[in-house]
Amino acid sequence: MTGRRGGRRPGSPDTRGAVLASARTLFAERGFTGTSVCAVAEGAGVDAALVHHYFGTKRELFLAAVAIPLDPAVVLGALHSVPRAQLGETVVRAVIGFWDGDHREAGIALLRAQLTDPESTILRTFIGDIIAGALGANADLDPDTAATRTALVASQIGGILLLRYIVGLDPIASMSVDELAAHIGPTVQRYLTDPMP
Amino acid sequence: MTGRRGGRRPGSPDTRGAVLASARTLFAERGFTGTSVCAVAEGAGVDAALVHHYFGTKRELFLAAVAIPLDPAVVLGALHSVPRAQLGETVVRAVIGFWDGDHREAGIALLRAQLTDPESTILRTFIGDIIAGALGANADLDPDTAATRTALVASQIGGILLLRYIVGLDPIASMSVDELAAHIGPTVQRYLTDPMP
Repeated sequence: MTGRRGGRRPGSPDTRGAVLASARTLFAERGFTGTSVCAVAEGAGVDAALVHHYFGTKRELFLAAVAIPLDPAVVLGALHSVPRAQLGETVVRAVIGFWDGDHREAGIALLRAQLTDPESTILRTFIGDIIAGALGANADLDPDTAATRTALVASQIGGILLLRYIVGLDPIASMSVDELAAHIGPTVQRYLTDPMP
Repeated sequence: MTGRRGGRRPGSPDTRGAVLASARTLFAERGFTGTSVCAVAEGAGVDAALVHHYFGTKRELFLAAVAIPLDPAVVLGALHSVPRAQLGETVVRAVIGFWDGDHREAGIALLRAQLTDPESTILRTFIGDIIAGALGANADLDPDTAATRTALVASQIGGILLLRYIVGLDPIASMSVDELAAHIGPTVQRYLTDPMP
C-alpha cells in the first residue's frame, strides 16, 4: 500500500473524522477556552477554513465532537421570549422536554461515559462554557455572578437528570414535566434571579 | 484437596466475605425491601442469627455490603436537635462535611462505580430506603409526602456531589461548606418543610 499523506479530500468522511478526533483530544486536554480551531485543524492536517466550513463555530465543533445532538443555545433560546419570573420553569421544561424526547438514549450514554472517565473534562467544559454561554446570553445574567448562578442551576438540573435517567429513583423518574417544573422551577428561578447570599 | 462443605467457622474472614457477597447479590437483584436477612444467610450457607450477630440490622448489613463507611442515620442524627427552620442548612453541612473529610476518595469511587453500571440498583436503594428512612425519622417528615421530599433533597444534594467531586466544576468545587450551605440550604429547607405544589 502506498501512503498518500496530505491526500485527504476536503469534506470526505475521513477528513471529518480526523477533525472530530483532533477536536475531542484537544478539548479533553486543554478545555474549551484553551483550544483553538487552528490547533484542531493542525492536529487533523487540514486548513482551519475547512473546519469552519464544515462545523461552523468553535461551540458547534465542540458539540459535534462530543456527539451532543442539539445546541444548548437553541434549547435555551426560548428564554428570550418569556417574562423574567418564568425563567426557572422554562429552563426545566426545555431541558427535561429535550431529554424525554428522541435524545434520551444518546444523552444517557454520553452522561454515563463522561461520569466514568476520571480524566474527562467534557462535562466541565460543557457546563462551564457552553451552558454558561447560553444561559448568560439568553437569561441576561449579571456577569459578576453568572458563573455561580450557572453552576447552581446545573447542580439542581444535573441532580434531576441523574436521578431520573441514570438512577431511576421514584417519584422523580415517573413525574410528568409539569410536576417537575412545579417542584424544581422555583429553585432554578431563585438561582437565576434572586440576590446572592 | 478435600472439600469441607459446611465447615466454615462462624465469624472467620471467609464467612463474613460470603455473607457480604450474598448481600451484595441479593440487594442488587431484589432491592432493599425485597431482600431478607434470612435469604442473605441462606445464600451464604450460614444461620440468620449469625448475620445479625456480625452485621446488626438489615440497614447496617446493606451499608457494609456496599462499603458505605458511615451510617446516614448517624450523619443525619444531628437533625433531631436543630430548630425546624435550620433543617436544610444542617443537612447540607452534614453531607458536605462528611464528603470533604476522610471519606472523600471512597465516596467518589463508590459513586462512580454505581453510575457506571446500568444494572445497579444500589443508589436507588440507598436513597429510596436508607436516606429516606434517616430523613423521615430525623426530620419528622409528613409520611404522605416523605418520598417526594426525600427525592427532591437527593436531587439537589446529588447534583452538588456530582459537580463538586466528579465533574470538578468551579465555583461549586472550590466553595467552602459555609458558602454551599448559604446557597443550597434554603433549597433543601424548602423541599423538606414547605407545602408541596
